[in-house]
Amino acid sequence: MVVGISILMDFSGVVDGKYHSASYWEDLLDQVIKIGRMTKLEISSYQFNQVHKHQGRSGSYIKGGATAFALLSESHISVHTWPEYEKAVVDVFTCGSIEHLDDLVDYLISNVQHSEIRITRLPRGELS
Amino acid sequence: MVVGISILMDFSGVVDGKYHSASYWEDLLDQVIKIGRMTKLEISSYQFNQVHKHQGRSGSYIKGGATAFALLSESHISVHTWPEYEKAVVDVFTCGSIEHLDDLVDYLISNVQHSEIRITRLPRGELS
Repeated sequence: MVVGISILMDFSGVVDGKYHSASYWEDLLDQVIKIGRMTKLEISSYQFNQVHKHQGRSGSYIKGGATAFALLSESHISVHTWPEYEKAVVDVFTCGSIEHLDDLVDYLISNVQHSEIRITRLPRGELS
Repeated sequence: MVVGISILMDFSGVVDGKYHSASYWEDLLDQVIKIGRMTKLEISSYQFNQVHKHQGRSGSYIKGGATAFALLSESHISVHTWPEYEKAVVDVFTCGSIEHLDDLVDYLISNVQHSEIRITRLPRGELS
């Protein structure tokens, strides 16, 4: 018996600084939770300090990454971003109805500009 | 280039009610974060309402499941439990040093009595 599903999204080529902003993700999580018809318990986020980005032999300091987390009655959504690598990783775990799950995932992906994405879907709690 | 690793743990046969208690998980997460030499930003948890557990043709109401979440400088740990199915699902995602990661996972597993466990390790952010 499966108790839920994990959808693990790995974004690459996330260049625009706004996708590394904690406040952007707080707003986006609020929207996707509504689209997924999920029940929010709590949203937290953090903006990390500036990081060094290598460019050829030199480099520069840029704003640090974001992390955001939504605790839901139906489980959770987590976000971590790395502007220095132009990457973001988003996990959606739901044990609720999956009727609106594809809408949630599609909306989320369409609101994070990227060059490549890898999505892994994993049923959870399958053991007897 | 990999930005982190997800360790997805699916426990079955989690019978004892204490493993479905939010306060038990808050304490355990505090301990495993120390063992993993990680930096805690925030821990949240919720105890859900009672649920119905089927037993043959009848059944009874038992305490609901727990959910807990630790937001770390090095990413996160999430927990969801279902006493009615005797299951728990724990995700550890770290983008930090993995030197103490096995110690963290071993300690966590040894503090959740279970009959079966499935562990999936997944490198994250591998795309170019």
